[in-house]
Amino acid sequence: MVVQVAIMGLGVVGGGTADLLTENHDLILSRTGVDIRIKYILDIRDLPDSPYADRIVHDISVIASDPEVAVVAETIGGVHPAYEFTRRLLEAGKSVVSSNKQLVSEYGVELLSVAEKAGCVYLYEASTGGGIPILSPLRYDLAGNEISEISGILNGTTNYILTRMISGGVDFEDALAEAKAKGYAEANPTADIDGHDAARKIAILAATAFGHLIPTERIHTEGIRGIRLSDVRAAESIGARIKLLGRALRLGGELFILVAPFLVFDSCPLARIDDVYNGVLVHGNYVGDLLFYGRGAGAKATASAVAADLISAASSALTGALTNPVWTPADESEPSDFASFACRHYIALSGVEANAVDVIFGKTEPVPTVEGEIAFLTELMTEREALERLERISASGATLQSRIRVCDRTE
Amino acid sequence: MVVQVAIMGLGVVGGGTADLLTENHDLILSRTGVDIRIKYILDIRDLPDSPYADRIVHDISVIASDPEVAVVAETIGGVHPAYEFTRRLLEAGKSVVSSNKQLVSEYGVELLSVAEKAGCVYLYEASTGGGIPILSPLRYDLAGNEISEISGILNGTTNYILTRMISGGVDFEDALAEAKAKGYAEANPTADIDGHDAARKIAILAATAFGHLIPTERIHTEGIRGIRLSDVRAAESIGARIKLLGRALRLGGELFILVAPFLVFDSCPLARIDDVYNGVLVHGNYVGDLLFYGRGAGAKATASAVAADLISAASSALTGALTNPVWTPADESEPSDFASFACRHYIALSGVEANAVDVIFGKTEPVPTVEGEIAFLTELMTEREALERLERISASGATLQSRIRVCDRTE
Repeated sequence: MVVQVAIMGLGVVGGGTADLLTENHDLILSRTGVDIRIKYILDIRDLPDSPYADRIVHDISVIASDPEVAVVAETIGGVHPAYEFTRRLLEAGKSVVSSNKQLVSEYGVELLSVAEKAGCVYLYEASTGGGIPILSPLRYDLAGNEISEISGILNGTTNYILTRMISGGVDFEDALAEAKAKGYAEANPTADIDGHDAARKIAILAATAFGHLIPTERIHTEGIRGIRLSDVRAAESIGARIKLLGRALRLGGELFILVAPFLVFDSCPLARIDDVYNGVLVHGNYVGDLLFYGRGAGAKATASAVAADLISAASSALTGALTNPVWTPADESEPSDFASFACRHYIALSGVEANAVDVIFGKTEPVPTVEGEIAFLTELMTEREALERLERISASGATLQSRIRVCDRTE
Repeated sequence: MVVQVAIMGLGVVGGGTADLLTENHDLILSRTGVDIRIKYILDIRDLPDSPYADRIVHDISVIASDPEVAVVAETIGGVHPAYEFTRRLLEAGKSVVSSNKQLVSEYGVELLSVAEKAGCVYLYEASTGGGIPILSPLRYDLAGNEISEISGILNGTTNYILTRMISGGVDFEDALAEAKAKGYAEANPTADIDGHDAARKIAILAATAFGHLIPTERIHTEGIRGIRLSDVRAAESIGARIKLLGRALRLGGELFILVAPFLVFDSCPLARIDDVYNGVLVHGNYVGDLLFYGRGAGAKATASAVAADLISAASSALTGALTNPVWTPADESEPSDFASFACRHYIALSGVEANAVDVIFGKTEPVPTVEGEIAFLTELMTEREALERLERISASGATLQSRIRVCDRTE
């Protein structure tokens, strides 16, 4: 059965998707019975040298008004014009599959609702975790589980930088320069380095697991600019690595969601995810811990996820089988107040009186560190308690050099 | 929408499934819209003290003839009567979901075909990898990829034993005794220890990826009885661990499928999968390497996979959306002749003349080992070449103490 599709945006991911659908066309047909043909590729450029030059169009109307086109991949990125194009296509009854984390994390509720009303689907596996199948397994394979935790290394750029700091012994600035030289970091790396990219992805993961889309501005987000080589080494000396994690934790009536660097002990499967790889750990009340690991970015890996959604949507266009996930906006009370989030903390101080730590933090576990500093792990305490104690120790004359939360998990 | 289901066999997995469907009933209903009710539980026992005593039946006819029952979980295990019951239910148009690796690996082709003809589905996620979503991702999420490799730690018992040998420094017999004491190994552990359990699972994985079911008797299967503590330590000294892997490799026109202990270097994500955990590494031509990690056995984890299939089949019973995977019997030529399988080999010899190794094996890489033995890694060679060289070195007076293949992967 022939299904005509279109791709919007022949950039890295769009190009990879076109290549996959071409190279693996016969395989997909024999495996699924769906004969996917790329009818149009929307791009602002002419691209006369592209192998897809004969299918380039510049006007979204061509795609929106062609009744033959059943499914469209949106690989433009950014909100505009991706939002307008997606909405228009969905309203025309065409399913859209997206690799656009920004659009999904900002307009997911609306676009899913538009799709549902129009009798088509809006799918977004490629928006999070690159090629790693994670959203579809969360939705289908873990449908029988109450999910209490999603913790992921969701950004390849920062994971590469932290890995280089750990294994190469280089400091943050040098590791960032290396990442730029290798093409793993953009010229302006703010979205990656400061955690905003990971925040979008954890919002999408949490919405998929819990059904409520948390606006990223409500997600406590910290990046990795403040991580010092001495912190990385101190962590290593106690069998831990520093990783930037996106975490959504639902325990009792509380939902915490945050992006921040964490000390991850080697016993946790997230500790060993290195370089540009991503990994997502999910805990379900029956399945226990699961880890999904793979390439979180790149043309080919992301194309794999776009293609999976394209194939599903194309099959569904024939059978009417798929339904849209139901997302609703987050409640006012979501997430819970971050001041109540409790964990252990790694703290490095300079200029501190030895007994001030005991008086203010009580029982601590010393961590070897550089001369002139004292570093330790606290016991479990809330963010509110940690801030209050840090204020007291600063008042005693100490200078906070570093504070990193500890990812303590017990299965 | 109410869907009545039945469970056949209230053992470990069946009991876990009943518990999940009861404990998480409301969650599943709110998430999927499917109101799953357990109408019958088939068991040979009366089980008056079970919370499900009111639903126990002893006669499969009750389930097969009840038009209200749409989906049945088969958690009996073994071939008989699971085969007869499954066939009868499928013929009656009831979808069956199975945790039974033996039945699926022996009768999968037939049962899938019966299901397809009867307009229902036969699903088997729980048969392989316990709670890890792996078959459904292979089928759907990786539908756009040509799969060239599936390599998995598929048996928790042997992985526990090997982990104890590595981390506890105990030998095989003591580690096996520990595994029995902890309930991780059965009184008769042959199916696990000798690789037969893993062979069934790699057959199911390969059939899911490639569409051809290879009979387990055609799978080259070795277990872990021959692994010595000195081999484990020798591997450790070169940054590797010994793991029992099920592997299906499809490269060019060749398909190799085997179960055997492998030296896995620490840089491979499979190396860090310890204790009773399972992990499956998949390589697709677009997605690259993926790893799926989690609990490969146990009541609750396996119930998670049974429930996922139950929910899918129940939704499908309402919408008619799902189709059966298409499996055909393996061709005569499948798998390729194992004598052509090429890899590096770890070899430990005693009573060997130093220069005999050079003469017979050419370039090798020495591996530190116990006194009185010589151990080394060979270069890449086929099984045929390895056997021929081992014969020659034996003829020279050496005694083969150990040979373990090396899992060399380059992404």
